[in-house]
Amino acid sequence: MKCSIPKGTRDFMPVEMARRNYIFDTIRSVFKTFAFEPIETPSLENLSTLMGKYGEEGDKLLFKVLNSGDFMKDVDFNQDYHKVAPQICERGLRYDLTVPFARFVVQHRDQITFPFRRYQLQPVWRADRPQKGRYREFYQCDADMIGSPSLLNELELVQMIDLVFQRLGIEVTVKINNRKILAGIADLIGAPDKLVDITVAIDKLDKIGLDNVRAELSERGLSQEQIVALDPIFNLNGSANQKLTQLQELFANIPTGLKGVEEMQTLFSLIEAVKPQCQIELDLTLARGLNYYTGAIFEVKAHHVSIGSICGGGRYDNLTGIFGMPDVSGVGISFGADRIYDVLNELNAFPAELGQSAHVLIINFGPSEQNYCLQIAALLRKSSIATLYYPEAAKMKKQMEFASKKGIPYVLFAGESEVANGTATIKDMASGEQTTLPIDQVAAHLLHQ
Amino acid sequence: MKCSIPKGTRDFMPVEMARRNYIFDTIRSVFKTFAFEPIETPSLENLSTLMGKYGEEGDKLLFKVLNSGDFMKDVDFNQDYHKVAPQICERGLRYDLTVPFARFVVQHRDQITFPFRRYQLQPVWRADRPQKGRYREFYQCDADMIGSPSLLNELELVQMIDLVFQRLGIEVTVKINNRKILAGIADLIGAPDKLVDITVAIDKLDKIGLDNVRAELSERGLSQEQIVALDPIFNLNGSANQKLTQLQELFANIPTGLKGVEEMQTLFSLIEAVKPQCQIELDLTLARGLNYYTGAIFEVKAHHVSIGSICGGGRYDNLTGIFGMPDVSGVGISFGADRIYDVLNELNAFPAELGQSAHVLIINFGPSEQNYCLQIAALLRKSSIATLYYPEAAKMKKQMEFASKKGIPYVLFAGESEVANGTATIKDMASGEQTTLPIDQVAAHLLHQ
Repeated sequence: MKCSIPKGTRDFMPVEMARRNYIFDTIRSVFKTFAFEPIETPSLENLSTLMGKYGEEGDKLLFKVLNSGDFMKDVDFNQDYHKVAPQICERGLRYDLTVPFARFVVQHRDQITFPFRRYQLQPVWRADRPQKGRYREFYQCDADMIGSPSLLNELELVQMIDLVFQRLGIEVTVKINNRKILAGIADLIGAPDKLVDITVAIDKLDKIGLDNVRAELSERGLSQEQIVALDPIFNLNGSANQKLTQLQELFANIPTGLKGVEEMQTLFSLIEAVKPQCQIELDLTLARGLNYYTGAIFEVKAHHVSIGSICGGGRYDNLTGIFGMPDVSGVGISFGADRIYDVLNELNAFPAELGQSAHVLIINFGPSEQNYCLQIAALLRKSSIATLYYPEAAKMKKQMEFASKKGIPYVLFAGESEVANGTATIKDMASGEQTTLPIDQVAAHLLHQ
Repeated sequence: MKCSIPKGTRDFMPVEMARRNYIFDTIRSVFKTFAFEPIETPSLENLSTLMGKYGEEGDKLLFKVLNSGDFMKDVDFNQDYHKVAPQICERGLRYDLTVPFARFVVQHRDQITFPFRRYQLQPVWRADRPQKGRYREFYQCDADMIGSPSLLNELELVQMIDLVFQRLGIEVTVKINNRKILAGIADLIGAPDKLVDITVAIDKLDKIGLDNVRAELSERGLSQEQIVALDPIFNLNGSANQKLTQLQELFANIPTGLKGVEEMQTLFSLIEAVKPQCQIELDLTLARGLNYYTGAIFEVKAHHVSIGSICGGGRYDNLTGIFGMPDVSGVGISFGADRIYDVLNELNAFPAELGQSAHVLIINFGPSEQNYCLQIAALLRKSSIATLYYPEAAKMKKQMEFASKKGIPYVLFAGESEVANGTATIKDMASGEQTTLPIDQVAAHLLHQ
């Protein structure tokens, strides 16, 4: 029988687990100091909760779970499979953490004190075509604050991003935009209905250049006049504040645009006051997740590594509206653990000591020293030292090879003479140095080395 | 639109998360000091990996995931649903952590150094009928050591169980049996083919009494002679060691039984040497998971609470055999986090401070004190103090009510005079006491209170 796992899924070996946990723990510790509270939602949601929330393409990517028992009963299979699927599957696997969170807030509104800050680190599933860096099961690390429209929330998200990547040792730029500015631009050129087309095209500016963006805008149904009217946007220059001042003038008669500029001016001055270490950039080409963002939009890019965004988020004014609870403003970010993993890997920036199994291996000399060794193991474990007592009285060579293969930094010998003297001999595997100590000093020795 | 989640699944609120994480962290910390290494396997496995591993009943309880795309293509729907299901579902949700671990070991055998100790804390899914304490999605916390037949492994599992429940403050009894002794008993009465029937009936001794057990054995096809021959087993008495000695005599001509007795004698003397705090009991009625256990069998019962076993496990000599890698002996345990949660709840034994969101709330007085408050927030967070700066300059009453509703133990005021003096005023919400301090002393004050 051949052993394999489904395409797009992964097994994680201990060393990968240690590295992933290093990322999760870092993110979690920052979420906690900003007083976010953890929640979890079920992996399985009713399909009715998920369907229609991620667009037509998203619906196709939902993993659907077959009803148990006789799922075929009363179902007409002479229909298109799109029609049959929801009749034989009532439940599906979570596609992201945002829609389940909206459902959670509405369902538990009476138990929640607003403003509410929650974080959630859980896997999500998408029936995407697997490719490098894209998986069918992957973790999202989300933090959202809801029930408060204050821009202090946006500020704190930037501070959290800054702190997470400081702690991980990754230099980043936080790109910020505002959906109201994008809407203002669409208004400015008299094409409010073309907001999406304009931002999708602008988003490609870096990749395809101005001429191609113009061609694409034309294809998307903008008139030459409208395209020319966009020129002042492409010609904005200077610092974030200077660009915002230029936009303010362009938006003289466009209230939405002005509101967006004002929000960004406030946010940038707040950010200036707290002096983050990361770079901050106003990026008017940033348009991610446009479907539900209504204010600030964030995206984080790592320096020195060519990879997509490693964190993103934004303000949404009506996410719970889809579940019948309108007017709850929220803002959140999502860290992409898998991409952060790839970045740390490429930068060779994981701490060296991650993924050690045992800190010390106690050599098994056989039954006569067994109780003595068990006593030492108990002492070390009491000091939270990861301790392995080799389970068989195998040949010394085999036990030493095991320690070296597993990268265990210390080996402890307690043979006849050590037992007689109440001592143990510790070998530092890196230096080869050996030290013999009374057993009550072994833990301290191993902890301070 | 009504919000709900699938039957048998759960949302976890922050306070429940804190309590669950307390359990997981305790278990994980013990696993680590015994040098177990973490792994994770995908939620989705190929159905061919899962089917046939849990018996006919288990197969029915597997959640199957519909193939994406046109799952109906080339499938004949004029068949029984049992036949159709595997044709439209290639993948299923993990049912336990043991079979995926066996698959993992076989698949990655070349990357694993044996003996290998792994732990795994992940959810599993079963399409069971939901009822009190039984869920369709729940966590298992497993630790297994494979590639070593030494009974030191069994000993360490007992030590780990002891340590976990010591740290959680739950008094427990670890019940131990051995599959070879059960096989010896079946041999003894000349009914080796009735091993399962005998143990299932014996297992009910406490519940239904000796007469009913005898009646059941008769129904299950044992002769009166065979049933009478069981009497010496029911009449065993004294300590574990005394019972084992009596068994040794009964098993004079039964090698399997003798081997089981010898294993138990060794294990009990090892356990005696390490002096665990928990109670240890030889329980010949213990027969759990008989299908793959081949040696020691463990089960843990909490004192003072009427609930099923909260941890269990055993030795299996051929788990990876189902995937074509024979002769790998392993032994493992699984902690039932949900039941442990219920026990701690019933004993009122969760630590009191769990589930605090913020340790301190900084009152928002408005824009003039804003930068000062942000500076204090940054200082406190640098000391890893969970700090919330109320995001709106709401009325004092509202902010204080928020702190009290959320159970935040300290509130920090930094108004006009504090800004002028470089101080902050901290109110202890429990005692009502107020202290004014220079801001560089606030973190230390909050940490030492």
